[in-house]
Amino acid sequence: MMDVKEYMTGIGRAARAASREMAKASTAEKNAALLAIAQAVRTRTESLLAANAADLAAAQEDGLAAAMIDRLTLSAKAIETMAQGLEQVARLADPVGEITDMKRRPTGIQVGKMRVPLGVVGIIYEARPNVTADAAALCLKAGNAAVLRGGKEAMRSNQAIAACVREGLRAAGLPETAVQVIETTDRAAVSHLVAMPEYVDVIVPRGGKGLIERVARDARVPVIKHLDGNCHVYVDDSADPAKALRIVDNAKTQRYGTCNTAESLLIARDVAADQLPGIAAVLIGKGVEIRGCAETRQLVAQAKVATEQDWYEEYLAPIIAVKVVANVGEAIAHINKYSSAHTEAIVTENYSNAMRFLREVDSSSVMVNASTRFADGFEYGLGAEIGISTDKFHARGPVGLEGLTSQKWIVLGNGEVRA
Amino acid sequence: MMDVKEYMTGIGRAARAASREMAKASTAEKNAALLAIAQAVRTRTESLLAANAADLAAAQEDGLAAAMIDRLTLSAKAIETMAQGLEQVARLADPVGEITDMKRRPTGIQVGKMRVPLGVVGIIYEARPNVTADAAALCLKAGNAAVLRGGKEAMRSNQAIAACVREGLRAAGLPETAVQVIETTDRAAVSHLVAMPEYVDVIVPRGGKGLIERVARDARVPVIKHLDGNCHVYVDDSADPAKALRIVDNAKTQRYGTCNTAESLLIARDVAADQLPGIAAVLIGKGVEIRGCAETRQLVAQAKVATEQDWYEEYLAPIIAVKVVANVGEAIAHINKYSSAHTEAIVTENYSNAMRFLREVDSSSVMVNASTRFADGFEYGLGAEIGISTDKFHARGPVGLEGLTSQKWIVLGNGEVRA
Repeated sequence: MMDVKEYMTGIGRAARAASREMAKASTAEKNAALLAIAQAVRTRTESLLAANAADLAAAQEDGLAAAMIDRLTLSAKAIETMAQGLEQVARLADPVGEITDMKRRPTGIQVGKMRVPLGVVGIIYEARPNVTADAAALCLKAGNAAVLRGGKEAMRSNQAIAACVREGLRAAGLPETAVQVIETTDRAAVSHLVAMPEYVDVIVPRGGKGLIERVARDARVPVIKHLDGNCHVYVDDSADPAKALRIVDNAKTQRYGTCNTAESLLIARDVAADQLPGIAAVLIGKGVEIRGCAETRQLVAQAKVATEQDWYEEYLAPIIAVKVVANVGEAIAHINKYSSAHTEAIVTENYSNAMRFLREVDSSSVMVNASTRFADGFEYGLGAEIGISTDKFHARGPVGLEGLTSQKWIVLGNGEVRA
Repeated sequence: MMDVKEYMTGIGRAARAASREMAKASTAEKNAALLAIAQAVRTRTESLLAANAADLAAAQEDGLAAAMIDRLTLSAKAIETMAQGLEQVARLADPVGEITDMKRRPTGIQVGKMRVPLGVVGIIYEARPNVTADAAALCLKAGNAAVLRGGKEAMRSNQAIAACVREGLRAAGLPETAVQVIETTDRAAVSHLVAMPEYVDVIVPRGGKGLIERVARDARVPVIKHLDGNCHVYVDDSADPAKALRIVDNAKTQRYGTCNTAESLLIARDVAADQLPGIAAVLIGKGVEIRGCAETRQLVAQAKVATEQDWYEEYLAPIIAVKVVANVGEAIAHINKYSSAHTEAIVTENYSNAMRFLREVDSSSVMVNASTRFADGFEYGLGAEIGISTDKFHARGPVGLEGLTSQKWIVLGNGEVRA
């Protein structure tokens, strides 16, 4: 039997060594690796599909839920999307080595910052094989080494993708150990991975709340957490009714299962009677269940009772909690109490209310007159994202290449010494 | 007997509530509080001195070491310096609410970032009462609430300073609980403080390596660590000899006990015979002990043998480890293996070696032709610092107001929805 601790120590040591090489790698080398991986993924489409078919057969035998089977499935089209994603990351600007904020000090030295890789990034995710390629690409471009641990149901698919990644790294003259996919399904591997600060600099768990909470609890290294998205839209008493309707509709119904979908609607008392029945009618027309406060239920006959728990809920379903509030102040207080600090939007034409909402709402994205559905690395122009952080420390909101790097101070002198 | 857990939960809850108020506080309110605290410190100089005298008497009775007594001692001059420090932080630009990087996206929305407080900052430090005022000032200006736990030997002094802080906060109409000084000497208080993620957003331990490692081990919240400073100067084969001598001398001898003092000297083989004897003579003339590799000992008769452990050592004393290396590549490899990743300097006139050193040395500050002694928040222009982070995550190197804040994403729209 495999000694998991020894195995993980070996992975960690190799990752640390590879991270030194990756930190030195030129932009051209990293891009060559990404393009070679994309090429390998295309060339090996058949073997990727075969590995995935074996995973799917085992999953069906184990009676995996349809939604999980769906996420596990790779099609030829999904593989082409994976290859294109790798090429897209190759086109992103290299963040590493970027020098900013150089200022001359009275002593004569010039002080500024240089962007550097974090080192070794551990990523723990569920049975979604495409994450293997996406995560590898982002870590590689940011000059990091990566240790990937995907869901056990996707093991064969992930190993097949890992072979493509190694082929691409080799072709570019970079260490194959720059991206390692853990080959054991033993849960203890995760416990070791998150507790090796000498080898791992940060852990990014991607998946359900249970996984993320477990990782955060056991971790001995920093974790970039992506917890749930209980997002709010607040319709202010100065809202443009057309914008309010359009934004609430889009934020709730464009997709139900995403973390930036609105789960609660707050509306100012002064405009509730005018606007809420119309908004509710549109939502109900699309099959959305309304759970409302007492005032909401007076205005919307079909609304069910919202319990205290509803204000906390991330439904990921055609349900919305609705509350009538006095004003922007009460809306902010409600959000800061119940929200998961992911994304919140105000609809208003009032400048002061907009500024106050922006300043006082303590969430990773705060919006004025735009749909919460925009909270996304691609929409924000990051090119790609490794997750959406609901932490405040280090990286907040969509995390792209910059979130996978840090900055060191640099000093350029001409022989200066301290007096 | 006091229930420490209940006490700390109360502290945490009050800090979280105060952090909401502090996040909303205007620059004028925060500056008014800082100036009022400075005033209170000056007005109460006599009672601060009396409290400190009581601490000192107890410390002497307990047989505290002279160096610790020295750090514990407050003089009228030290109290005036404390007041001036508070006024200096009041003059720093307020980081909170600063909007940067706004870009218009193809969808029409504008996306950027707004700087926000971290929330609640816990600071654990040894018996240096001036840290109480400095740390409170930085946390307050950055819009955070602070929970301070100083060394038990300084308890009376810290409580006296805390009274001034409360007076200043009250005068400015800010919550007195925005800065709380823990009143129990029970060690369990620290264990609770670092394990309340619901109330504390980050812990900054300041003090010895033992304290910091203990905090990092027990913490359930992010920690900004300031571990040791094993700083290097590398004299390249293209170094200007006059700059090399001046920088090594200053980096080693200007102060022996600071974390940015050089503890190791690396010198390129091609120039060692020419330059090392002269450099060594100056150091030895100031009473510095040289511990060298074999080649060093051939060139410097008085040099003692450097053991493997010497390359890891932070002496904080008039001792320096010296090694002759082949070139910049060997210097970088040595530093990345043995350094504590604090601060390293190269002395060179060669552009490519300078650039390579800047890029490849994995430390929080990397310098060309300047003394390591410049690695300091004041020298870098931060105005003040809460510590020097040897972590890569979130904040690296000197941590000022910016390190005590985070950024949220903001989106300014005009009714845009996602297609």
